[in-house]
Amino acid sequence: MKWKRSERLVDMTQYLMEHPHKLIPLTFFANLYQSAKSSISEDLTIVKETFEARGRGLLVTVPGAAGGVKFIPTVAEEDVLEIAEDLMTQLSKVDRLLPGGYLYMTDLLGNPSLMNKIGKVFASAFANSKIDAIMTVATKGIPIAHAIARHLNVPVVIVRRDSKVTEGPTVSINYVSGSARRIQTMVLSKRSMEKGRRVLITDDFMKVGGTINGMKSLLEEFNCELAGIAVLVEAEHQGEQLVDDYLSLVKLHEVNEKDGTIALTQGNYFEKGGKLNESSINN
Amino acid sequence: MKWKRSERLVDMTQYLMEHPHKLIPLTFFANLYQSAKSSISEDLTIVKETFEARGRGLLVTVPGAAGGVKFIPTVAEEDVLEIAEDLMTQLSKVDRLLPGGYLYMTDLLGNPSLMNKIGKVFASAFANSKIDAIMTVATKGIPIAHAIARHLNVPVVIVRRDSKVTEGPTVSINYVSGSARRIQTMVLSKRSMEKGRRVLITDDFMKVGGTINGMKSLLEEFNCELAGIAVLVEAEHQGEQLVDDYLSLVKLHEVNEKDGTIALTQGNYFEKGGKLNESSINN
Repeated sequence: MKWKRSERLVDMTQYLMEHPHKLIPLTFFANLYQSAKSSISEDLTIVKETFEARGRGLLVTVPGAAGGVKFIPTVAEEDVLEIAEDLMTQLSKVDRLLPGGYLYMTDLLGNPSLMNKIGKVFASAFANSKIDAIMTVATKGIPIAHAIARHLNVPVVIVRRDSKVTEGPTVSINYVSGSARRIQTMVLSKRSMEKGRRVLITDDFMKVGGTINGMKSLLEEFNCELAGIAVLVEAEHQGEQLVDDYLSLVKLHEVNEKDGTIALTQGNYFEKGGKLNESSINN
Repeated sequence: MKWKRSERLVDMTQYLMEHPHKLIPLTFFANLYQSAKSSISEDLTIVKETFEARGRGLLVTVPGAAGGVKFIPTVAEEDVLEIAEDLMTQLSKVDRLLPGGYLYMTDLLGNPSLMNKIGKVFASAFANSKIDAIMTVATKGIPIAHAIARHLNVPVVIVRRDSKVTEGPTVSINYVSGSARRIQTMVLSKRSMEKGRRVLITDDFMKVGGTINGMKSLLEEFNCELAGIAVLVEAEHQGEQLVDDYLSLVKLHEVNEKDGTIALTQGNYFEKGGKLNESSINN
Protein backbone atom coordinates (compact mmCIF):
# COMPACT_ATOMS: atom_id res chain seq x y z
CA MET A 1 0.00 0.00 0.00
CA LYS A 2 1.24 3.43 -1.00
CA TRP A 3 0.40 6.07 1.57
CA LYS A 4 -0.64 9.62 0.79
CA ARG A 5 0.52 12.45 3.03
CA SER A 6 -2.94 12.95 4.50
CA GLU A 7 -3.14 9.27 5.44
CA ARG A 8 0.36 9.28 6.87
CA LEU A 9 -0.51 12.28 9.05
CA VAL A 10 -3.55 10.56 10.53
CA ASP A 11 -1.76 7.28 11.14
CA MET A 12 1.39 8.93 12.46
CA THR A 13 -0.60 11.03 14.93
CA GLN A 14 -2.34 7.93 16.18
CA TYR A 15 0.96 6.05 16.49
CA LEU A 16 2.72 8.88 18.32
CA MET A 17 -0.17 9.30 20.76
CA GLU A 18 -0.06 5.62 21.62
CA HIS A 19 3.71 5.72 22.17
CA PRO A 20 4.50 8.77 24.32
CA HIS A 21 8.06 9.32 25.54
CA LYS A 22 9.34 6.68 23.15
CA LEU A 23 12.10 7.44 20.67
CA ILE A 24 10.93 6.42 17.22
CA PRO A 25 13.54 6.31 14.43
CA LEU A 26 12.56 8.03 11.19
CA THR A 27 13.30 4.80 9.36
CA PHE A 28 10.44 3.17 11.28
CA PHE A 29 7.93 5.54 9.69
CA ALA A 30 9.76 5.45 6.34
CA ASN A 31 9.39 1.65 6.21
CA LEU A 32 5.87 1.64 7.57
CA TYR A 33 4.64 4.08 4.92
CA GLN A 34 7.03 3.11 2.11
CA SER A 35 8.06 6.74 1.88
CA ALA A 36 11.31 8.67 1.63
CA LYS A 37 12.79 9.92 4.88
CA SER A 38 12.54 13.46 3.54
CA SER A 39 8.76 13.10 3.19
CA ILE A 40 8.55 11.66 6.69
CA SER A 41 10.52 14.65 7.98
CA GLU A 42 8.06 17.04 6.36
CA ASP A 43 5.13 15.09 7.82
CA LEU A 44 6.67 15.27 11.27
CA THR A 45 7.11 19.03 10.96
CA ILE A 46 3.38 19.39 10.30
CA VAL A 47 2.53 17.12 13.24
CA LYS A 48 4.94 18.99 15.49
CA GLU A 49 3.61 22.44 14.57
CA THR A 50 0.01 21.36 15.04
CA PHE A 51 0.67 19.71 18.41
CA GLU A 52 2.61 22.70 19.63
CA ALA A 53 0.20 25.35 18.33
CA ARG A 54 -2.58 23.74 20.34
CA GLY A 55 -0.39 23.03 23.39
CA ARG A 56 -1.22 19.35 23.13
CA GLY A 57 2.29 18.02 23.12
CA LEU A 58 5.86 18.46 21.98
CA LEU A 59 7.61 16.55 19.26
CA VAL A 60 11.25 16.38 20.17
CA THR A 61 13.78 15.52 17.49
CA VAL A 62 16.87 13.62 18.52
CA PRO A 63 19.52 13.96 15.80
CA GLY A 64 22.09 11.38 14.74
CA ALA A 65 22.16 7.73 13.74
CA ALA A 66 20.45 6.61 16.95
CA GLY A 67 18.02 9.51 16.69
CA GLY A 68 14.38 9.91 15.89
CA VAL A 69 11.34 11.67 17.27
CA LYS A 70 9.69 11.52 20.66
CA PHE A 71 6.17 12.66 21.52
CA ILE A 72 5.92 14.39 24.90
CA PRO A 73 2.30 14.94 25.95
CA THR A 74 1.66 18.36 27.45
CA VAL A 75 -1.39 20.25 28.60
CA ALA A 76 -1.87 23.94 27.83
CA GLU A 77 -2.01 26.13 30.93
CA GLU A 78 -5.61 27.21 30.25
CA ASP A 79 -6.64 23.56 29.94
CA VAL A 80 -5.06 22.72 33.32
CA LEU A 81 -7.01 25.59 34.82
CA GLU A 82 -10.22 24.31 33.26
CA ILE A 83 -9.57 20.79 34.60
CA ALA A 84 -8.92 22.14 38.12
CA GLU A 85 -11.98 24.41 38.02
CA ASP A 86 -14.15 21.55 36.87
CA LEU A 87 -12.77 19.37 39.65
CA MET A 88 -13.46 22.05 42.26
CA THR A 89 -17.03 22.52 41.01
CA GLN A 90 -17.65 18.81 41.28
CA LEU A 91 -15.93 18.43 44.66
CA SER A 92 -17.82 21.30 46.22
CA LYS A 93 -21.20 19.59 45.86
CA VAL A 94 -22.70 19.19 49.32
CA ASP A 95 -23.84 15.61 48.79
CA ARG A 96 -20.18 14.55 48.77
CA LEU A 97 -19.94 15.19 52.51
CA LEU A 98 -19.48 12.01 54.51
CA PRO A 99 -19.52 11.58 58.30
CA GLY A 100 -16.19 12.64 59.82
CA GLY A 101 -15.64 15.39 57.29
CA TYR A 102 -14.61 13.03 54.47
CA LEU A 103 -15.43 13.73 50.84
CA TYR A 104 -16.84 11.14 48.48
CA MET A 105 -14.49 11.12 45.46
CA THR A 106 -14.87 7.57 44.18
CA ASP A 107 -17.01 8.57 41.20
CA LEU A 108 -14.37 11.03 40.02
CA LEU A 109 -11.60 8.44 40.38
CA GLY A 110 -13.77 6.07 38.34
CA ASN A 111 -14.15 8.54 35.46
CA PRO A 112 -11.57 7.44 32.88
CA SER A 113 -11.74 10.62 30.81
CA LEU A 114 -11.10 12.82 33.87
CA MET A 115 -8.31 10.51 35.05
CA ASN A 116 -6.76 10.68 31.59
CA LYS A 117 -6.70 14.48 31.71
CA ILE A 118 -5.28 14.57 35.24
CA GLY A 119 -2.69 11.96 34.36
CA LYS A 120 -1.60 14.07 31.42
CA VAL A 121 -1.35 17.20 33.57
CA PHE A 122 1.04 15.51 35.99
CA ALA A 123 2.94 13.71 33.22
CA SER A 124 3.38 17.09 31.58
CA ALA A 125 4.59 18.69 34.84
CA PHE A 126 7.20 15.96 35.32
CA ALA A 127 8.08 15.49 31.66
CA ASN A 128 11.60 16.87 32.17
CA SER A 129 12.40 14.85 35.29
CA LYS A 130 13.94 11.44 34.84
CA ILE A 131 11.22 9.08 36.04
CA ASP A 132 11.44 5.29 35.94
CA ALA A 133 8.24 4.31 37.74
CA ILE A 134 5.06 5.65 39.36
CA MET A 135 4.26 4.45 42.86
CA THR A 136 0.93 4.60 44.65
CA VAL A 137 -0.91 2.79 47.41
CA ALA A 138 -3.97 0.62 46.77
CA THR A 139 -6.81 1.29 46.04
CA LYS A 140 -7.80 4.83 45.23
CA GLY A 141 -4.47 6.07 43.85
CA ILE A 142 -4.33 3.40 41.15
CA PRO A 143 -6.34 5.15 38.41
CA ILE A 144 -4.22 8.32 38.73
CA ALA A 145 -0.99 6.35 38.83
CA HIS A 146 -1.89 4.46 35.67
CA ALA A 147 -3.00 7.61 33.89
CA ILE A 148 0.30 9.38 34.66
CA ALA A 149 2.29 6.26 33.79
CA ARG A 150 0.64 5.87 30.41
CA HIS A 151 1.60 9.40 29.40
CA LEU A 152 5.17 8.93 30.65
CA ASN A 153 5.53 5.36 29.34
CA VAL A 154 6.80 3.94 32.65
CA PRO A 155 5.53 1.12 34.89
CA VAL A 156 3.25 1.43 37.92
CA VAL A 157 4.21 -0.03 41.28
CA ILE A 158 1.40 -0.64 43.76
CA VAL A 159 1.95 -0.67 47.49
CA ARG A 160 -0.59 -2.65 49.51
CA ARG A 161 -1.85 -2.70 53.08
CA ASP A 162 -1.43 -6.47 53.33
CA SER A 163 0.61 -9.06 51.46
CA LYS A 164 -1.02 -11.46 49.03
CA VAL A 165 0.16 -14.87 47.87
CA THR A 166 0.17 -13.61 44.26
CA GLU A 167 2.79 -10.97 45.07
CA GLY A 168 5.61 -13.32 46.07
CA PRO A 169 8.09 -12.19 48.73
CA THR A 170 7.40 -8.67 50.01
CA VAL A 171 9.14 -5.93 51.95
CA SER A 172 7.02 -4.47 54.71
CA ILE A 173 7.40 -1.23 56.66
CA ASN A 174 5.51 0.47 59.46
CA TYR A 175 4.54 4.11 59.27
CA VAL A 176 2.58 6.61 61.30
CA SER A 177 -0.69 7.45 59.62
CA GLY A 178 -1.00 11.19 59.84
CA SER A 179 -4.07 12.55 61.55
CA ALA A 180 -4.89 9.52 63.69
CA ARG A 181 -1.22 8.90 64.60
CA ARG A 182 -1.80 5.19 64.31
CA ILE A 183 0.95 2.76 63.36
CA GLN A 184 0.10 1.11 60.06
CA THR A 185 1.81 -1.31 57.72
CA MET A 186 2.45 -1.18 54.00
CA VAL A 187 4.01 -3.88 51.86
CA LEU A 188 5.56 -3.99 48.42
CA SER A 189 6.46 -7.02 46.36
CA LYS A 190 10.23 -7.44 46.17
CA ARG A 191 10.03 -8.08 42.46
CA SER A 192 8.20 -4.86 41.75
CA MET A 193 11.22 -2.53 41.74
CA GLU A 194 14.93 -2.74 41.06
CA LYS A 195 17.31 -0.55 43.02
CA GLY A 196 18.33 2.84 41.71
CA ARG A 197 14.98 3.68 40.13
CA ARG A 198 13.69 7.22 40.23
CA VAL A 199 10.11 7.12 41.39
CA LEU A 200 7.20 9.55 41.22
CA ILE A 201 4.82 8.99 44.13
CA THR A 202 1.15 9.80 43.61
CA ASP A 203 -2.10 9.58 45.54
CA ASP A 204 -5.64 10.89 45.31
CA PHE A 205 -5.65 12.66 48.68
CA MET A 206 -3.04 13.96 51.13
CA LYS A 207 -3.60 15.48 54.53
CA VAL A 208 -0.65 15.28 56.92
CA GLY A 209 1.24 13.13 54.43
CA GLY A 210 1.63 9.97 56.52
CA THR A 211 0.88 7.57 53.70
CA ILE A 212 3.19 9.37 51.31
CA ASN A 213 5.87 9.40 53.98
CA GLY A 214 5.40 5.64 54.28
CA MET A 215 5.98 5.27 50.56
CA LYS A 216 9.13 7.38 50.86
CA SER A 217 10.41 4.95 53.52
CA LEU A 218 9.68 2.07 51.15
CA LEU A 219 11.74 3.80 48.46
CA GLU A 220 14.68 3.83 50.86
CA GLU A 221 14.22 0.12 51.59
CA PHE A 222 14.42 -0.54 47.85
CA ASN A 223 17.38 1.84 47.40
CA CYS A 224 15.31 3.94 45.07
CA GLU A 225 15.12 7.69 44.72
CA LEU A 226 12.19 10.07 45.05
CA ALA A 227 11.64 11.91 41.76
CA GLY A 228 8.55 13.84 42.84
CA ILE A 229 5.16 13.73 44.51
CA ALA A 230 1.84 14.43 42.79
CA VAL A 231 -1.47 14.53 44.65
CA LEU A 232 -4.88 15.26 43.27
CA VAL A 233 -6.33 16.89 46.40
CA GLU A 234 -4.36 18.16 49.38
CA ALA A 235 -6.20 19.04 52.58
CA GLU A 236 -5.27 21.93 54.84
CA HIS A 237 -4.85 20.93 58.47
CA GLN A 238 -3.49 22.04 61.81
CA GLY A 239 -0.12 20.84 62.93
CA GLU A 240 2.92 19.35 61.34
CA GLN A 241 3.10 18.61 57.62
CA LEU A 242 5.16 15.49 56.98
CA VAL A 243 5.72 16.06 53.27
CA ASP A 244 6.84 19.38 51.88
CA ASP A 245 7.72 19.04 48.24
CA TYR A 246 4.76 18.01 46.17
CA LEU A 247 2.41 19.18 43.44
CA SER A 248 -1.32 19.34 44.10
CA LEU A 249 -4.08 20.23 41.67
CA VAL A 250 -6.73 21.21 44.22
CA LYS A 251 -6.59 22.27 47.85
CA LEU A 252 -9.33 21.50 50.35
CA HIS A 253 -9.45 24.19 53.05
CA GLU A 254 -12.45 23.40 55.14
CA VAL A 255 -15.27 20.95 55.34
CA ASN A 256 -18.12 22.06 57.54
CA GLU A 257 -20.56 19.22 58.10
CA LYS A 258 -22.98 21.44 60.02
CA ASP A 259 -23.27 24.19 57.40
CA GLY A 260 -22.69 21.75 54.56
CA THR A 261 -19.91 23.86 53.07
CA ILE A 262 -16.80 22.69 51.30
CA ALA A 263 -14.09 25.31 50.70
CA LEU A 264 -11.69 24.58 47.87
CA THR A 265 -9.00 26.51 46.02
CA GLN A 266 -6.45 25.75 43.35
CA GLY A 267 -3.59 23.54 44.44
CA ASN A 268 0.05 24.57 44.50
CA TYR A 269 0.44 23.43 40.86
CA PHE A 270 -0.60 26.94 39.90
CA GLU A 271 1.95 28.64 42.16
CA LYS A 272 4.74 26.36 41.07
CA GLY A 273 3.55 26.57 37.48
CA GLY A 274 3.66 22.80 37.25
CA LYS A 275 7.38 23.23 36.81
CA LEU A 276 8.94 21.38 39.70
CA ASN A 277 12.49 20.82 38.62
CA GLU A 278 15.12 18.34 39.62
CA SER A 279 16.76 20.55 42.23
CA SER A 280 13.53 21.27 44.04
CA ILE A 281 12.53 17.66 44.51
CA ASN A 282 15.53 15.86 45.92
CA ASN A 283 14.53 15.95 49.58
CA MET B 1 -6.17 31.01 13.26
CA LYS B 2 -6.97 29.54 9.87
CA TRP B 3 -6.36 25.82 9.73
CA LYS B 4 -4.94 23.92 6.76
CA ARG B 5 -6.26 20.46 5.96
CA SER B 6 -3.03 18.79 7.09
CA GLU B 7 -3.27 20.54 10.48
CA ARG B 8 -6.94 19.72 10.84
CA LEU B 9 -6.21 16.04 10.16
CA VAL B 10 -3.58 15.89 12.91
CA ASP B 11 -5.68 17.76 15.44
CA MET B 12 -8.87 15.90 14.58
CA THR B 13 -7.16 12.53 14.95
CA GLN B 14 -5.89 13.56 18.35
CA TYR B 15 -9.31 14.82 19.41
CA LEU B 16 -11.14 11.70 18.23
CA MET B 17 -8.66 9.40 19.97
CA GLU B 18 -9.18 11.24 23.23
CA HIS B 19 -12.97 11.04 22.92
CA PRO B 20 -13.87 7.47 21.93
CA HIS B 21 -17.53 6.45 21.72
CA LYS B 22 -18.60 10.08 21.93
CA LEU B 23 -20.87 11.60 19.31
CA ILE B 24 -19.24 14.75 17.97
CA PRO B 25 -21.37 17.07 15.81
CA LEU B 26 -19.75 18.25 12.58
CA THR B 27 -20.41 21.82 13.67
CA PHE B 28 -18.02 21.29 16.59
CA PHE B 29 -15.13 20.69 14.21
CA ALA B 30 -16.38 23.36 11.78
CA ASN B 31 -16.29 25.98 14.57
CA LEU B 32 -13.03 24.72 16.04
CA TYR B 33 -11.22 24.95 12.71
CA GLN B 34 -13.18 27.85 11.20
CA SER B 35 -13.89 25.67 8.20
CA ALA B 36 -16.90 24.80 6.10
CA LYS B 37 -18.81 21.67 7.03
CA SER B 38 -18.09 20.26 3.58
CA SER B 39 -14.33 20.50 4.23
CA ILE B 40 -14.78 18.85 7.63
CA SER B 41 -16.72 16.04 5.94
CA GLU B 42 -13.86 15.47 3.52
CA ASP B 43 -11.36 15.48 6.40
CA LEU B 44 -13.41 12.92 8.26
CA THR B 45 -13.52 10.67 5.21
CA ILE B 46 -9.73 10.65 5.10
CA VAL B 47 -9.54 9.94 8.84
CA LYS B 48 -12.14 7.19 8.53
CA GLU B 49 -10.43 5.47 5.62
CA THR B 50 -7.04 5.59 7.29
CA PHE B 51 -8.35 4.24 10.62
CA GLU B 52 -10.25 1.48 8.87
CA ALA B 53 -7.47 0.49 6.47
CA ARG B 54 -5.18 -0.13 9.42
CA GLY B 55 -7.88 -1.75 11.58
CA ARG B 56 -7.29 0.85 14.26
CA GLY B 57 -10.83 2.00 14.68
CA LEU B 58 -14.13 2.82 13.00
CA LEU B 59 -15.55 6.24 12.37
CA VAL B 60 -19.30 5.93 12.49
CA THR B 61 -21.40 8.67 10.94
CA VAL B 62 -24.76 9.40 12.53
CA PRO B 63 -26.90 11.39 10.06
CA GLY B 64 -29.44 14.08 10.86
CA ALA B 65 -29.61 17.26 12.89
CA ALA B 66 -28.54 15.51 16.10
CA GLY B 67 -25.90 13.58 14.21
CA GLY B 68 -22.15 13.66 13.97
CA VAL B 69 -19.25 11.23 14.07
CA LYS B 70 -18.19 8.71 16.66
CA PHE B 71 -14.78 7.07 16.94
CA ILE B 72 -14.97 3.38 17.92
CA PRO B 73 -11.52 1.98 18.79
CA THR B 74 -10.89 -1.47 17.34
CA VAL B 75 -7.93 -3.82 17.19
CA ALA B 76 -7.07 -5.73 14.04
CA GLU B 77 -7.29 -9.52 14.45
CA GLU B 78 -3.55 -10.00 13.81
CA ASP B 79 -2.74 -7.40 16.46
CA VAL B 80 -4.91 -9.22 19.03
CA LEU B 81 -3.03 -12.39 18.20
CA GLU B 82 0.28 -10.63 18.67
CA ILE B 83 -0.82 -9.22 22.05
CA ALA B 84 -1.96 -12.67 23.22
CA GLU B 85 1.24 -14.34 21.97
CA ASP B 86 3.36 -11.73 23.71
CA LEU B 87 1.38 -12.23 26.91
CA MET B 88 1.83 -16.00 26.73
CA THR B 89 5.57 -15.66 26.15
CA GLN B 90 5.86 -13.43 29.18
CA LEU B 91 3.59 -15.54 31.40
CA SER B 92 5.41 -18.76 30.58
CA LYS B 93 8.67 -17.61 32.18
CA VAL B 94 9.53 -19.99 34.98
CA ASP B 95 10.47 -17.30 37.47
CA ARG B 96 6.80 -16.31 37.63
CA LEU B 97 6.01 -19.47 39.55
CA LEU B 98 4.99 -18.80 43.14
CA PRO B 99 4.36 -21.31 45.95
CA GLY B 100 0.92 -22.90 45.61
CA GLY B 101 1.00 -22.83 41.81
CA TYR B 102 0.27 -19.10 41.56
CA LEU B 103 1.74 -16.95 38.81
CA TYR B 104 3.31 -13.55 39.42
CA MET B 105 1.51 -11.15 37.07
CA THR B 106 1.82 -7.85 38.93
CA ASP B 107 4.50 -6.46 36.60
CA LEU B 108 2.27 -7.05 33.57
CA LEU B 109 -0.69 -5.39 35.27
CA GLY B 110 1.61 -2.45 36.05
CA ASN B 111 2.62 -1.99 32.40
CA PRO B 112 0.44 0.85 31.10
CA SER B 113 1.17 0.24 27.43
CA LEU B 114 0.21 -3.45 27.69
CA MET B 115 -2.90 -2.57 29.72
CA ASN B 116 -3.85 -0.01 27.09
CA LYS B 117 -3.64 -2.65 24.34
CA ILE B 118 -5.60 -5.22 26.34
CA GLY B 119 -8.21 -2.62 27.27
CA LYS B 120 -8.65 -1.77 23.62
CA VAL B 121 -9.01 -5.44 22.66
CA PHE B 122 -11.89 -5.94 25.10
CA ALA B 123 -13.43 -2.53 24.32
CA SER B 124 -13.34 -3.54 20.68
CA ALA B 125 -14.95 -6.94 21.41
CA PHE B 126 -17.81 -5.29 23.32
CA ALA B 127 -18.11 -2.18 21.14
CA ASN B 128 -21.55 -3.23 19.88
CA SER B 129 -23.00 -4.11 23.27
CA LYS B 130 -24.69 -1.40 25.25
CA ILE B 131 -22.38 -0.91 28.22
CA ASP B 132 -22.86 1.72 30.93
CA ALA B 133 -20.08 0.78 33.35
CA ILE B 134 -17.13 -1.54 33.93
CA MET B 135 -16.99 -3.39 37.23
CA THR B 136 -14.00 -5.06 38.84
CA VAL B 137 -12.79 -6.03 42.28
CA ALA B 138 -9.83 -4.33 43.97
CA THR B 139 -6.87 -4.46 43.46
CA LYS B 140 -5.51 -6.28 40.47
CA GLY B 141 -8.45 -5.84 38.12
CA ILE B 142 -8.35 -2.04 38.31
CA PRO B 143 -5.79 -1.34 35.56
CA ILE B 144 -7.68 -3.54 33.08
CA ALA B 145 -11.03 -2.06 34.07
CA HIS B 146 -9.76 1.49 33.55
CA ALA B 147 -8.14 0.60 30.24
CA ILE B 148 -11.38 -0.90 28.90
CA ALA B 149 -13.43 1.97 30.30
CA ARG B 150 -11.29 4.62 28.66
CA HIS B 151 -11.80 3.07 25.23
CA LEU B 152 -15.55 2.73 25.81
CA ASN B 153 -15.96 6.09 27.55
CA VAL B 154 -17.85 4.70 30.54
CA PRO B 155 -17.18 4.84 34.31
CA VAL B 156 -15.41 2.21 36.42
CA VAL B 157 -17.02 0.77 39.53
CA ILE B 158 -14.71 -0.86 42.05
CA VAL B 159 -15.87 -3.57 44.43
CA ARG B 160 -13.85 -3.92 47.62
CA ARG B 161 -13.22 -6.62 50.19
CA ASP B 162 -13.95 -4.26 53.07
CA SER B 163 -15.84 -1.01 53.45
CA LYS B 164 -14.01 2.31 53.89
CA VAL B 165 -15.23 5.53 55.48
CA THR B 166 -14.55 7.34 52.20
CA GLU B 167 -17.06 5.18 50.33
CA GLY B 168 -20.17 6.22 52.25
CA PRO B 169 -22.98 3.67 52.75
CA THR B 170 -22.25 0.33 51.08
CA VAL B 171 -24.06 -2.81 50.05
CA SER B 172 -22.33 -5.98 51.10
CA ILE B 173 -22.79 -9.56 49.92
CA ASN B 174 -21.27 -12.91 50.80
CA TYR B 175 -20.03 -15.27 48.15
CA VAL B 176 -18.25 -18.59 47.93
CA SER B 177 -14.69 -18.15 46.76
CA GLY B 178 -14.15 -20.85 44.16
CA SER B 179 -11.30 -23.23 44.79
CA ALA B 180 -11.08 -22.85 48.57
CA ARG B 181 -14.88 -22.85 49.00
CA ARG B 182 -14.55 -20.20 51.69
CA ILE B 183 -17.27 -17.67 52.40
CA GLN B 184 -16.01 -14.18 51.62
CA THR B 185 -17.47 -10.71 51.59
CA MET B 186 -17.48 -7.99 48.96
CA VAL B 187 -18.86 -4.49 49.30
CA LEU B 188 -19.81 -1.75 46.90
CA SER B 189 -20.59 1.86 47.65
CA LYS B 190 -24.31 2.54 47.22
CA ARG B 191 -23.53 5.70 45.29
CA SER B 192 -21.40 3.95 42.75
CA MET B 193 -24.17 2.65 40.53
CA GLU B 194 -27.74 3.55 39.63
CA LYS B 195 -30.23 0.80 38.89
CA GLY B 196 -30.77 -0.40 35.35
CA ARG B 197 -27.15 -0.05 34.27
CA ARG B 198 -25.63 -2.58 31.91
CA VAL B 199 -22.32 -3.64 33.35
CA LEU B 200 -19.24 -5.36 31.91
CA ILE B 201 -17.43 -7.32 34.61
CA THR B 202 -13.67 -7.74 34.28
CA ASP B 203 -10.79 -9.27 36.24
CA ASP B 204 -7.19 -10.23 35.69
CA PHE B 205 -7.62 -13.91 36.57
CA MET B 206 -10.47 -16.39 36.78
CA LYS B 207 -10.38 -19.97 37.97
CA VAL B 208 -13.69 -21.38 39.20
CA GLY B 209 -15.30 -17.98 38.86
CA GLY B 210 -16.28 -17.38 42.49
CA THR B 211 -15.23 -13.73 42.55
CA ILE B 212 -16.98 -13.00 39.27
CA ASN B 213 -20.06 -14.80 40.56
CA GLY B 214 -19.92 -12.54 43.61
CA MET B 215 -19.91 -9.49 41.37
CA LYS B 216 -22.90 -10.92 39.48
CA SER B 217 -24.76 -11.14 42.80
CA LEU B 218 -23.88 -7.52 43.51
CA LEU B 219 -25.33 -6.53 40.13
CA GLU B 220 -28.61 -8.11 41.20
CA GLU B 221 -28.56 -6.20 44.49
CA PHE B 222 -28.17 -2.99 42.50
CA ASN B 223 -30.85 -4.03 39.98
CA CYS B 224 -28.27 -3.86 37.24
CA GLU B 225 -27.74 -6.13 34.26
CA LEU B 226 -24.75 -8.17 33.19
CA ALA B 227 -23.53 -7.00 29.78
CA GLY B 228 -20.52 -9.31 29.56
CA ILE B 229 -17.46 -10.73 31.30
CA ALA B 230 -13.87 -10.16 30.21
CA VAL B 231 -10.91 -11.86 31.88
CA LEU B 232 -7.27 -11.58 31.01
CA VAL B 233 -6.24 -15.10 32.08
CA GLU B 234 -8.58 -18.00 32.76
CA ALA B 235 -7.23 -21.09 34.50
CA GLU B 236 -8.31 -24.63 33.69
CA HIS B 237 -9.40 -26.62 36.71
CA GLN B 238 -11.19 -29.74 37.85
CA GLY B 239 -14.78 -29.51 38.91
CA GLU B 240 -17.63 -27.11 38.48
CA GLN B 241 -17.25 -23.85 36.56
CA LEU B 242 -19.41 -21.14 38.12
CA VAL B 243 -19.30 -18.73 35.18
CA ASP B 244 -19.94 -19.83 31.63
CA ASP B 245 -20.22 -16.84 29.37
CA TYR B 246 -17.04 -14.83 29.26
CA LEU B 247 -14.19 -13.78 27.00
CA SER B 248 -10.61 -14.65 27.94
CA LEU B 249 -7.44 -13.67 26.16
CA VAL B 250 -5.17 -16.40 27.53
CA LYS B 251 -5.84 -19.79 29.09
CA LEU B 252 -3.61 -21.34 31.74
CA HIS B 253 -3.72 -25.12 31.53
CA GLU B 254 -1.18 -26.37 33.97
CA VAL B 255 1.37 -25.08 36.38
CA ASN B 256 3.89 -27.65 37.47
CA GLU B 257 5.99 -26.36 40.33
CA LYS B 258 8.20 -29.45 40.34
CA ASP B 259 9.13 -29.36 36.65
CA GLY B 260 8.87 -25.60 36.49
CA THR B 261 6.52 -25.71 33.50
CA ILE B 262 3.67 -23.39 32.70
CA ALA B 263 1.30 -24.47 29.94
CA LEU B 264 -0.66 -21.73 28.21
CA THR B 265 -2.85 -21.45 25.14
CA GLN B 266 -4.98 -18.78 23.55
CA GLY B 267 -8.14 -17.88 25.45
CA ASN B 268 -11.66 -18.34 24.10
CA TYR B 269 -11.51 -14.87 22.52
CA PHE B 270 -10.08 -16.57 19.47
CA GLU B 271 -12.83 -19.20 19.27
CA LYS B 272 -15.58 -16.67 19.79
CA GLY B 273 -13.80 -14.25 17.47
CA GLY B 274 -14.13 -11.55 20.09
CA LYS B 275 -17.68 -11.21 18.87
CA LEU B 276 -19.84 -12.00 21.85
CA ASN B 277 -23.17 -10.57 20.95
CA GLU B 278 -26.12 -9.41 22.97
CA SER B 279 -28.01 -12.69 22.76
CA SER B 280 -25.09 -14.76 24.01
CA ILE B 281 -24.47 -12.73 27.14
CA ASN B 282 -27.78 -12.36 28.86
CA ASN B 283 -27.43 -15.18 31.36
